[in-house]
Parts: sequence; structure tokens; C-alpha cells
Amino acid sequence: MFYHDGKLQYTVRVEKPNPHFAKMLQQAIGGIEGEMRVALQYLFQAWGARGPKKFRDLLLETGTEELAHIEMLATAVALNLEGAPSETKSNFVAHPVVGAILGGMDPRHVISSGLAAMAADANGVPFNGSWIVATGNLAADMHANVMAESSGRVLAARLYAMTDDPGMKDMLSFLIARDSMHQNQWLAVLEDIGGLQGAHPIPNSVDRAVEPDQFSYAFVSTKREPQPDPGERWTQGPTPDGKGAFHFEPAAPTGGEPVLAPSPPEAFAQLEQRELEPVG
Amino acid sequence: MFYHDGKLQYTVRVEKPNPHFAKMLQQAIGGIEGEMRVALQYLFQAWGARGPKKFRDLLLETGTEELAHIEMLATAVALNLEGAPSETKSNFVAHPVVGAILGGMDPRHVISSGLAAMAADANGVPFNGSWIVATGNLAADMHANVMAESSGRVLAARLYAMTDDPGMKDMLSFLIARDSMHQNQWLAVLEDIGGLQGAHPIPNSVDRAVEPDQFSYAFVSTKREPQPDPGERWTQGPTPDGKGAFHFEPAAPTGGEPVLAPSPPEAFAQLEQRELEPVG
Amino acid sequence: MFYHDGKLQYTVRVEKPNPHFAKMLQQAIGGIEGEMRVALQYLFQAWGARGPKKFRDLLLETGTEELAHIEMLATAVALNLEGAPSETKSNFVAHPVVGAILGGMDPRHVISSGLAAMAADANGVPFNGSWIVATGNLAADMHANVMAESSGRVLAARLYAMTDDPGMKDMLSFLIARDSMHQNQWLAVLEDIGGLQGAHPIPNSVDRAVEPDQFSYAFVSTKREPQPDPGERWTQGPTPDGKGAFHFEPAAPTGGEPVLAPSPPEAFAQLEQRELEPVG
Amino acid sequence: MFYHDGKLQYTVRVEKPNPHFAKMLQQAIGGIEGEMRVALQYLFQAWGARGPKKFRDLLLETGTEELAHIEMLATAVALNLEGAPSETKSNFVAHPVVGAILGGMDPRHVISSGLAAMAADANGVPFNGSWIVATGNLAADMHANVMAESSGRVLAARLYAMTDDPGMKDMLSFLIARDSMHQNQWLAVLEDIGGLQGAHPIPNSVDRAVEPDQFSYAFVSTKREPQPDPGERWTQGPTPDGKGAFHFEPAAPTGGEPVLAPSPPEAFAQLEQRELEPVG
Amino acid sequence: MFYHDGKLQYTVRVEKPNPHFAKMLQQAIGGIEGEMRVALQYLFQAWGARGPKKFRDLLLETGTEELAHIEMLATAVALNLEGAPSETKSNFVAHPVVGAILGGMDPRHVISSGLAAMAADANGVPFNGSWIVATGNLAADMHANVMAESSGRVLAARLYAMTDDPGMKDMLSFLIARDSMHQNQWLAVLEDIGGLQGAHPIPNSVDRAVEPDQFSYAFVSTKREPQPDPGERWTQGPTPDGKGAFHFEPAAPTGGEPVLAPSPPEAFAQLEQRELEPVG
Amino acid sequence: MFYHDGKLQYTVRVEKPNPHFAKMLQQAIGGIEGEMRVALQYLFQAWGARGPKKFRDLLLETGTEELAHIEMLATAVALNLEGAPSETKSNFVAHPVVGAILGGMDPRHVISSGLAAMAADANGVPFNGSWIVATGNLAADMHANVMAESSGRVLAARLYAMTDDPGMKDMLSFLIARDSMHQNQWLAVLEDIGGLQGAHPIPNSVDRAVEPDQFSYAFVSTKREPQPDPGERWTQGPTPDGKGAFHFEPAAPTGGEPVLAPSPPEAFAQLEQRELEPVG
Repeated sequence: MFYHDGKLQYTVRVEKPNPHFAKMLQQAIGGIEGEMRVALQYLFQAWGARGPKKFRDLLLETGTEELAHIEMLATAVALNLEGAPSETKSNFVAHPVVGAILGGMDPRHVISSGLAAMAADANGVPFNGSWIVATGNLAADMHANVMAESSGRVLAARLYAMTDDPGMKDMLSFLIARDSMHQNQWLAVLEDIGGLQGAHPIPNSVDRAVEPDQFSYAFVSTKREPQPDPGERWTQGPTPDGKGAFHFEPAAPTGGEPVLAPSPPEAFAQLEQRELEPVG
Repeated sequence: MFYHDGKLQYTVRVEKPNPHFAKMLQQAIGGIEGEMRVALQYLFQAWGARGPKKFRDLLLETGTEELAHIEMLATAVALNLEGAPSETKSNFVAHPVVGAILGGMDPRHVISSGLAAMAADANGVPFNGSWIVATGNLAADMHANVMAESSGRVLAARLYAMTDDPGMKDMLSFLIARDSMHQNQWLAVLEDIGGLQGAHPIPNSVDRAVEPDQFSYAFVSTKREPQPDPGERWTQGPTPDGKGAFHFEPAAPTGGEPVLAPSPPEAFAQLEQRELEPVG
Repeated sequence: MFYHDGKLQYTVRVEKPNPHFAKMLQQAIGGIEGEMRVALQYLFQAWGARGPKKFRDLLLETGTEELAHIEMLATAVALNLEGAPSETKSNFVAHPVVGAILGGMDPRHVISSGLAAMAADANGVPFNGSWIVATGNLAADMHANVMAESSGRVLAARLYAMTDDPGMKDMLSFLIARDSMHQNQWLAVLEDIGGLQGAHPIPNSVDRAVEPDQFSYAFVSTKREPQPDPGERWTQGPTPDGKGAFHFEPAAPTGGEPVLAPSPPEAFAQLEQRELEPVG
Repeated sequence: MFYHDGKLQYTVRVEKPNPHFAKMLQQAIGGIEGEMRVALQYLFQAWGARGPKKFRDLLLETGTEELAHIEMLATAVALNLEGAPSETKSNFVAHPVVGAILGGMDPRHVISSGLAAMAADANGVPFNGSWIVATGNLAADMHANVMAESSGRVLAARLYAMTDDPGMKDMLSFLIARDSMHQNQWLAVLEDIGGLQGAHPIPNSVDRAVEPDQFSYAFVSTKREPQPDPGERWTQGPTPDGKGAFHFEPAAPTGGEPVLAPSPPEAFAQLEQRELEPVG
Repeated sequence: MFYHDGKLQYTVRVEKPNPHFAKMLQQAIGGIEGEMRVALQYLFQAWGARGPKKFRDLLLETGTEELAHIEMLATAVALNLEGAPSETKSNFVAHPVVGAILGGMDPRHVISSGLAAMAADANGVPFNGSWIVATGNLAADMHANVMAESSGRVLAARLYAMTDDPGMKDMLSFLIARDSMHQNQWLAVLEDIGGLQGAHPIPNSVDRAVEPDQFSYAFVSTKREPQPDPGERWTQGPTPDGKGAFHFEPAAPTGGEPVLAPSPPEAFAQLEQRELEPVG
Repeated sequence: MFYHDGKLQYTVRVEKPNPHFAKMLQQAIGGIEGEMRVALQYLFQAWGARGPKKFRDLLLETGTEELAHIEMLATAVALNLEGAPSETKSNFVAHPVVGAILGGMDPRHVISSGLAAMAADANGVPFNGSWIVATGNLAADMHANVMAESSGRVLAARLYAMTDDPGMKDMLSFLIARDSMHQNQWLAVLEDIGGLQGAHPIPNSVDRAVEPDQFSYAFVSTKREPQPDPGERWTQGPTPDGKGAFHFEPAAPTGGEPVLAPSPPEAFAQLEQRELEPVG
């Protein structure tokens, strides 16, 4: 169950409201690298957690923290949309050329939300539930979480570089720091369940006899003209999972051309597709 | 530029065509864990690669290999849809109860694609370009790739367990093995660019002075009733990025309640929303 | 800021796990009538609230409660997916006909989430951020909220009728009751800001001189053959907004046929589309 | 069955073509508050109407009228895109800075539709069928309709404020007036079927014994620190459905922590997730 | 402007209600091959039509007819969902195996729409506005229309083959016939504006000097091992546009490897990506 | 199976990097008229091809070529995003008005992809798998392919007209030429399988007795006031399929008003919807 206190986890202050920056901040709310994704991803992972209780607890902890980050960013969007210099807000009616000034903001911040954040990315594309990754496999999910925090921190750093508003820089510093922590924390879980060698290849619950080693550690080069082994970290030496050694192989088909049956009458293909001439 | 030979990378053989299994296989084609995602993700990462050329090359190599995996799976779907036992294909017209036999297959495999694979997942939800992650940051992208191969291998293992068709098991063994290789190969890239300690926190191109250390390594517990430090791997000891030490903090707001301006006339909120009583 | 205690708002108990019912419950999680929508809708409305603080508070209160409802339903899905009768889980491999048993469940509950809830509806269509309505107009938003709780209660009632599991019936009773409360509470807000007559037509901040009364209270009948006034509640008598009276009008165009300019060269239409013959 | 006469319901006249305003108008066509949604929503509600025929008739009437509104707006978009000042259309090639003038228009109005309206919102996000609400419950559907017309009128008012083109203001006046009418008409239906007290809680076809009154009229406060009853309209006094009285309750869990079974082998979670230590 | 009479264009009669067939019919309503797409596609093409008025008229005519087809199919769905054999509707509660009977129907037909059609395809995926093709080029649009009617007729034929309900067969016969007409009618427009040779290559308003003939009529073979010209219709002889002759060419790159600049600091890639080693 | 050589099919050269043009080019990558759609459409058609092998071969050939076109365009986007005039990249922080300069570019090109192409259209709307048309009917698919190449060539011509960068004009000339070829080649396939008269009405595998000729060749006019036959190509004379003759018919319903059963109790409509008064 969840509770709130209506206060912000960290101060959100906007000195120079900027509707263009409000649009950029939307990516950190409703974009695939954004806070809605991580908040819901960690909560769904928690709600489906099977195995040691401590992982469910951990996911609930941080999933709940991320809700506060959406709150901070939504507040930052709202503040960037108010008190904007009058030339930005009022000249739209003047004529088309000046109207272009509005080009950099999300028009739906005015016409749809009335100066408030939306559940969408910087282009107005709505948040999508398919981005919430929860496989039921703890190691796969931790990689998903490290990746989400990594792309989130890249995004926050780019936003930091784009603004010279001290309040926004301060808020983004905080969020960058929290992303550092969360990267580390999910890596710590991976360490806790055996590290790369214990966890990989993910899932570690597959009987290794299922997969032929000749395929499991072969780097397949699809270069049209076969090349020699370049001797890279991924073509030679022990594999990071500690269970094999890389080798190099030019791509070559081992299966022939596929042969499909003629189209059956009930599929209503063209008549030409029903003839007996074999495919392949 | 790309070339083809019309042959399959690995044999695809279906002994007992099963339209229900065809539906399951769609997840491995057009689902978020599927081969369309990894093929396009690696290719888009390659096409935008900036920095040492060897990483662009690597991404092109494996992106191209994944195209062959879509081809194998699409062929497997087509073969599972043909020659199905006549009771499955022909009884639909009989009456509703028997019609339920069709319940387990994707109806669009008959009515839309005419017994062929589609660019959709196991529920018929179309492939979505937003799943293609390419941030321009090599380390973030490698985590995205490890995660994609991890969830892909989890999926392939579950599909393997669901079928007793020897041909399908053989094909899935191959794909499971390739996912093992690809997990290892992307981890090898991370090792090549400095390992966890060199790469994290991602991006490693942010000036660390930007982020206050008090926030970067603090585990924030959102439990309603504050708890003592549980002494877990993620609350104490060195952080996996090698740059700090975890500590434990109960959640507490450091920002107050947000204060937004009254709604301006041009936003056409209700009149009650224009009054001067401050929010917060 | 948000907090949690890891406990459920109301007991979730499943006596006879049923993967088909798990699929149905997904509609109440990630469907347009579901709890993700209301939780996020109320929170986004709160985060953008301008005007009297009590409305922001109210929205935060109930938005936070709805998070606990997602938690309950996600737990119910997970419990319905475990311990299912072995004939349901293990016979898939047998042959196509028996495989149909799986037809009624969401295959991604096995192959994607590993027996856990997903952020999707009963057909596996992902949750979509566009469903989160927050216009910045309190009265419009309250109608959106009443509507969300109405369709949510219809859904919960249908789910209640579909199950004979006492635990599920008990949980759904609780949710049906909460939907009753929330309908009433949003209606109470409408009452608080002037009732239908004070709030309508929404927004009440438009200068009524803008809109010609001849159009504001005219029922336009689009019947091909004009009909007499049927004397219904919506064709005669005072309007519910208390500001006019209904009258009845057969549809008739007052604008002529539209006249568009020929296609300019740079649009690369066909040559025929550039000729001078006027359209209309 | 449907018929047309090729004429516009109301005059559409553009004195100063403005491609930026064309982009804004798209929200009223293909956005969630737009005319495609209401037209199709009323028609789908009509086509599935069960119960007194007069409601089906009413929905067909107004659904058909809304088709004429899409037609008006699509014409307005096309007219705003033609004859635009040459500096707007021709300078794109000049250099990047001047090219920004085009920033405010939807690029697809040039490159995809060739100066015509599209089935998308102001950000180019396509119309989505999930927005069409038709629950089969007349009262729930009427609230959906009131809400659609409310957000539609808010949008039209904001568009009205953004333009000083007399033709566009005139057209928007007409549409604002029709939204007033439609709000009133759907409210009249609610009145016709018993008013708030007759219809709520929606659906009114649930046996009230199903839901415990202790939950049906309790305002649950999720404040982290329990607060006293604020004595608001939604915490005390009779409920708008006329069937109970509000009371105030601090949030408290009544269910314990959820307990899920360990992950079964066939789900291929990590090995750690199979151990017997109970969760919760 | 549009009008209606509430009657069906052609009789819709269901003798043996079948909820599984209702699900199949959804593809013809809200699927990409369905009637919502063609109705709206023709209307949007009409509303943006520039050039001779007769084409706008034609598109309005048939766009309006297609609205009547959605109406017929929505009615067919509603009728297939009612009066279904009691074993289909009432046994869901019994136990999971029998519950599978429901597997073949769309659960949202019960829990979301209350036995009515929805704006979605046979898998419940919502209708999407991006499917509405209107390029502003008449010839391109006519091909889009022929294609839509072709895939629509394929779908209708497959649905016809799936049912033995005489009423459904009768309705589908009518729709198949109308699709024949519409294919012919759009082909007639192509003939009217010059036939294949007049219209192709589309657009015919491009200065042919822009495109080098060596590329415009070359069949590029991407076979890994270059092959001889197979002498097919598409490798030799006059081209269907009447403006050239096919020739055969093995694929070969004419551009080198792409060279991108190192990643600039503000993009926050990894440090390795900023080094000076050229890419390519 | 697929191979690559890392070289571009045709030179991609950008003399004056322009981030606004990069945004426009996205439509040609991830838009519905773009290269991702055609590449995947032809490959999926190939992988599901049933009938003469030469068509599968052809589809693989050109599907593989289109992959090289995505590569060219993604490179063009990356090059247009680098080295942009400093006033474009660095002034965002200055103040809101100048920030508008950025309005014309896709913000995600900076904050999400780090100066690289994305799998999205010119408005940032992600590529969608539903656009990939593969019906299993060769003639229907060829029309889909002609249509895709037609809208693609219209798009390329408009992009050509928008830029004065010689490198971009050169690349677009090549792509325009390839679209010419591909239009011709798919038309050649249609010719190869019988031409319009052999292929239409599509599918040609429907027993013509199924469809009543009175409906198959009747132009239905939906004008509200019935009109005389205008004597157009589509109302008189032989049909392009060579199997009938057009005639003209004013629209008139042949089915009555639909009659649906009252709502059953388990659908939880309003009580008013259960009464016995017949609908219709």
C-alpha cells in the first residue's frame, strides 16, 4: 500500500520559465528513458517477485522513490510553462512568421493540458506500457534496470547541458546522482546473485546440454567477403560468463532454402500460388 | 550494403505442425524480446556509431546475423501453420464449442496473413519502433543489448519447454546458444571499454562534480515507517562502480509542497481555478 | 513524495487459481478502464493543479490509493497463475487439440512475464499514456474521473459475475465499493464548484457572447428525411446547464462546398491536380 | 445507412492562411479531444445500443453530425495550408536558421499529406481506436460523452484564443456552441434515466449487497501522517448518489504482504528464485 | 455534411450466434484491412482533394458508403454475441478447462463493450489513424485504395469460408461484391488519368531529368554470389510505365563506408567515443 | 541468410548539415512511406511466399536492397546532425526566443539518440509493425508494394524540393530512381500473373458465383438528393477487370433497422437497458 505527503523529494525551482525546456523535460517523464517507465517497471517487478523476499522489498523501495521523481519533473514542467516571457505566449496570433516562436514548444502543453505535464515524451508520443520490462527472471530484470538507469542518466546529463537555469541544473544534479545510485544498486544485486559468472548466460536455469557449445561461443561474422579473425575481445579468449572461450566463424548457412507448401484454397491467395511447382 | 543467399542460417524443421505454437513463436519475432528488435537495434546503433570503427563493425556483423534469425522464425511460423491436423483447420464452421479449438491460435494467421508470420507479438500487438534503443552512448547501449539477449534467451528457453517437436527443439537450441554468445559478446565490449568500473556510472563523460555524492550512493528507503539499515549488498560497502560506498537513508522530503500559479485566463480552466488563493 | 508499507490495502486470496481469469483481470490493470489509468490520471491532475489547494490534495489522496489497487490486482493475477491444475500448464506439448486448453490464457503470462501481471489489457495491448486525461480544467477533469470510475465499476461487476472463487469475489466487492465512493467523491467536487449549472457548459470561463445561442441549444437531427420534433428531454425544455432551452432543427448545410486551391508544384501531386478548373 | 451532400455544415473561411494554426487544428480532428473520437464514439455506442430505441436514434443523430465537424476542420486545415506567405513556404532551403520558421508547422503537412489534414493530433500522433468508449452501459457512456464534449469545448476555446483570423474565430464559435449543446443533451439523457441518484453508482444493475457500505462511502486519506477529517464536501454529508453518507478514514492496510510461490522450473527464472524460503 | 436513415445498406442476419466469429469480424471493422480504414481514407482524401472536382465527389460518395459497411459489420458482431448457446456464456466459472471454451472469443466483448463491436481488430489491437493514407497525389492514393479493397476482399473471402451461417454468408457475399466494384472503380480512375503509362512513375510531376535512368530501370540483385540475368518480366523488356527498359545488375556498393564525426561532448557518449581515430 | 559489406549502396554526402532536414529525412526511414516499411514488407512477403519460387526470390532481392536504403538515410540523418552551424546547436541555453531556433529539429535527435537516426517518423512517432502488409495473396501484395513505392517516391520528391544541399539532392535522385524501378517491377509481376484482367477482382480464387453481379459492378451514389448518372468512367462502360460493366445506382437501404436483444443481466448495463421494448 502507498502513502504520500504532498512534498517534493528535492527542491524544484525555475528561475527563467522556458516552455521549450518544458518540452525537453517531457522525455524524462513519459519517454522510454523516463521516470514513468522505471517507477512502473520496478513496481511490476516487485508485484511479481518470486524467490527471496529481500528482492521484492528492494524493488518496492526504489519503485516508490521513482514516483517522487515523476512528481518533481511534472512540477518542473508546470513551472517552466508559467510566467513565460510575454513575447513567447502572446504573439502567436500576430502572424505566421512570429508564430514560429511557438514552434519549439509542445502545442499540447497549451491546448490540451493547460500548462501542465503530460504522460508523453518530448515529441508528444504517449507513454507505452510495453516499455515496462518484467520477465520474472531476476538477472534479466536487473540488466533491464541497469540499462534504464543508464539511458536515464545520459538523458539527464544532456538536459543539464541544455539549460542554464540554476534551479533546473540543481534539480538535474540530484536526478543524475540518484541514477548513479540506482545503477550501482542493481549491479549490486547482480553481484549478490553470483555476479556475471553466476548469472550468465541468463537464464542460468537452462540445462546447458540444450545448447551446442559450438554455437554458444562462436562469433559469427556476416561480412560478405569472409575476413580473418580480428583478434578482438569478442573473438578470442575466455567469455565473460566464465564458461567458455570465444572463437571466430565466417557466416555460412547450415539450413537450405525454406520449402513451404502451396497455398491452400481456404487462404484465397491468387490461383498462381496453388500450383504444385515446389518452392525451393 | 546487404546481401542474401536465400538459405537459412540453421535448419528449420517442423514435424508436427501446431498453430498454437506458431502464435507463441510470434513473440520471438515481433515481441519486445524478439529478433526484429535486436536486429534493428544493432543496425541503428551501428549506423549512428561515433568513435572507434571496430564497434560499428561489430554491431553491423551481429545486426546482420539477427536478420537471419527473423528469417528462421518466420519460416518456423509458416511451417507450423501448414498441414495442421484437419480437425484444427476445418471444424471452425461446425459450432461454437468446437470452434474453441481455434481459440489458441492467432486468428490473423488465417484471416490476415494467409498462413504466414506477421510483424507482431504473441498477442498480435504490432512491433513498435520505440523498442529500438540506441542512445549514442556505447556503454548504455551495451547494457541494452545484454538485456535484450537476456530476455530473448529467457523467452527461447520457455518456448523450448513448451514444445516436444524435435525440429522446433533443435532450432530453439541453436537460438538459445546464439543468445549465450551475444550476451557474452556485449559483456566483452563492456570489458573492452573499461569494465563496470570504467563505464559506470553511465555516461562516464559527466563531470562527477555535477552530482552531490550524498545522493549518488545513498539507498533511499521509502518504507512508511523508517527501518534500520538491513545491511544488504546495496546498503553498505563499496559500490560496483568503484567510486563510492553505499549508505542507507530513510526517505524524507527535502523540497516543500509545489506552488503553481493560478491558471491564466487563456487556459480556460474553470473560474474557481483563477482565484488568488495560493496553492501550497 | 511517496511511501509504501508492502502490505495490501485489502486481502487478496485465490482459492482456485485460474489463468483465464488472470487474463480477464489484466483489463482492470492495464486497460483503459483500469487502475493504472485512474492512478496516473489523478496524480497528473494533481501535479498540474492550479487553483484552490484542496483539489490538489484530494487528487493526490485518491491517486495514491489507486496505486494500491494496481498492487492488489497484480497480486491477484500472480496468484491466479500459480498452482493451476497441472492439466492446464503441462499439456501444451501434447498435441494441438489439447493445446487449445491454453487458448483462454494470455500466452505472454508464461513466455514473457513468467507468471506475473503485465502493464497491458486483457488482450495484451499495452497501457497507453494517451488515456490519462488532465485538461487543466477542473470540471472537465471531474467528468473524466466520474467516467473512469463508472466504466471501472462496470468492468469490476462483470468480472465479479465471471468468477465463483470466493477470494476473488471478496476482492472485487471491495473494488466495486471503492468505485462507488470515487464516483460520489468526484460528483461532490462538481457540486462543490457550482453543480451542473455552475460548471456547464464546460469551460465556464468562455465568454458566452462568443457562441451564438441559436447553435448552443439546438438539437440537430441528421435524419435523411426531416422528422418532426419527437418531444424528448433533449429537444424541448430547459437545458441542464440552466442557461437556455432546447429546440429541434433538421440538419441543413449553412456552408457551401469547400473550394481548395489547385495543388502547388512543390506538393508533387499528379499533373491533373494542377489544372485551373476550380474545385467546388 | 449514411448520405452526404458535399456541403459544409457551417462556413469555413480563412483570411490569413497560417500553417502553424493548421497544426493546432489537428488536435481537434485526430486528438483524444477531437471530432473523430466523438463521431466514432457516438456511432459505435449507437450500433451496440440495447434498450429503448430512442437512445440509439439519438446517438446516430449526433454521431452523424460530428462527421460534418471533421469535414469542417479538415477543410480549415487545408485552407490554412494554402496561400501561406511565400516566406513561410519557400525559405526552408535557404539555411538552417531561417528554416526554423518551419519549426512551428507539422512537417508531414508538406511531406506526407501534400497540404491536407491527417488523422492525427497536433503532434502528429495518429488517432487511436482505444479512445472510443462504448461500455454498453448507457449511464457510463453518457458520462464519457459529457467528458468528451467538455474537453472538446476547452480545446475549441483555447484555439479560439490563439487566432485572430475572423473566419477561424467564426467557425470556432459555431463549434463551441455545438459543444455546449452536446454537453447539455447528454446530461439530459442522464436526467431522463433517473438523474444522478437514479444512475449512480454506475452501473445501477449491481446488487448493492455485493459491496460493503463501509467501503462504498469512505474517503480514504493516504497522507503518510494521518490527518483529521477536513470536513470537505467529499468527507461528510450525503453522497451525490443519494444512497449513503461520506465518512473519513486514514489509509491502513487490511491485507498482509502478498505471498507468491517460488518460481516453477518451467518459468526459467534464476536459480535463486526457486528456493523454498517463503516470500512474505 | 452527412445524413443517416438508421437502416442497414444490406440485411444482416445471424442464425447461429457465434462469439468466435464475432471476434473474426472485428478484423473487418477495426483492422488494417477493415472498413474504418477505407471509410476514413476516402473521406480524408476527399476533404484534401485539389484538382478536378469530380474526384472529390467520387471519394465522398464511396467514403460515405463505407460508413454503412461499418454499421453492417458492427451489427453483425452484436448479433453474434447475443443468444449464444448457454454453454458458451455460462460455464466460465466452472473450472479452467471448460473455461477454455471462452478462449476463442474476445474477452473484451464481454468485459469492456458489453456484447458490442469495438474499434479494434481481431486481436483487440485498436484501430490506428496512421493507416489512413492520403498523400495528396491522386495516382498514389488510387493505388492505396485498390490495395485496401484487395486486402479487404481477401479478408472477406476468408471470413466467408469460415462460417456456415447462411445470414453471415449472405452479408459477406454482398461485401465481397462491393469490394469488386470498388477495386474496379479506383482502377477506372487510374485509367481516367492516363492509365499506368500516364500515371507512372508516381508522381508524374517529377522532372525525369532528376533521376538517372541507369538507376530507374535497373533490377538490382542482392544475391551474395552474383547470378546471371534470369530473364524474367522484371529484368528484361519494356517497363510497365512505357518509359524505359529493364536491365539486370548484381548489387555493388557505389558509396564507401560512412564516416561520422567523433561524438561531441554535449552528447554524453562514453569517453572512448570522443577520440580522434576516424570511423571508416 | 544475410551478409553485409559496411559500404553504402550510393554515396551519401552532406555539404551543409541541417538538423531540420534530418528531421524531415526521418519520414523516409521510420514513417509509413519509409524504407523500414518496404524492407520489412518485402522480406515478410518473401518469408511467407507460397507458390512459384521466383516470386520469393524477387521479394528477397529487393527487400535486401531496401535495407541498404535505410542505411543510406540513417547515415544522411547522422551527417545532417553534425557540424551544424554553432548558432543552431549552442544557443538553446540563451533564452526562450532564440531557443525557438531549435523548434524545427527533433529534440530527441539530441536528447535521446545523441545525433543519430531513430526508428521513427518526422514527428517522432515510432515505426509500427502494423504497416507491414503481407496478405499471402500475391496480387494484393503487389498492389501494396506499388502503393508503398508510389507514396515513397512522392515523399522523396518533396524532400528533394526542400533541400538545396547538392549531396542530399544527389542521394535523393538515386532514391527517386530506385522507386521508379520498384514501381515498375511490381507492376511487371502483376503483368506476369495475368495483368489487371487476370488478377482482378483480387483475390481471383473466389468463386464468382458467391457475389451477386448486381452489387459487383454498381456505382452506389450516397448523395442525399439522388442524382442522374454523371456518365463517368466509373459509372458506365466495361470494368477494368474485364468481367462486367459499370452501372449507376442511388444509395438506398435494403436492410431494415437493426434489432438487438435487450442487454442481458451479466453485462451490467443500466436497468433501463433490460426492458422488453424492442429496439428497432
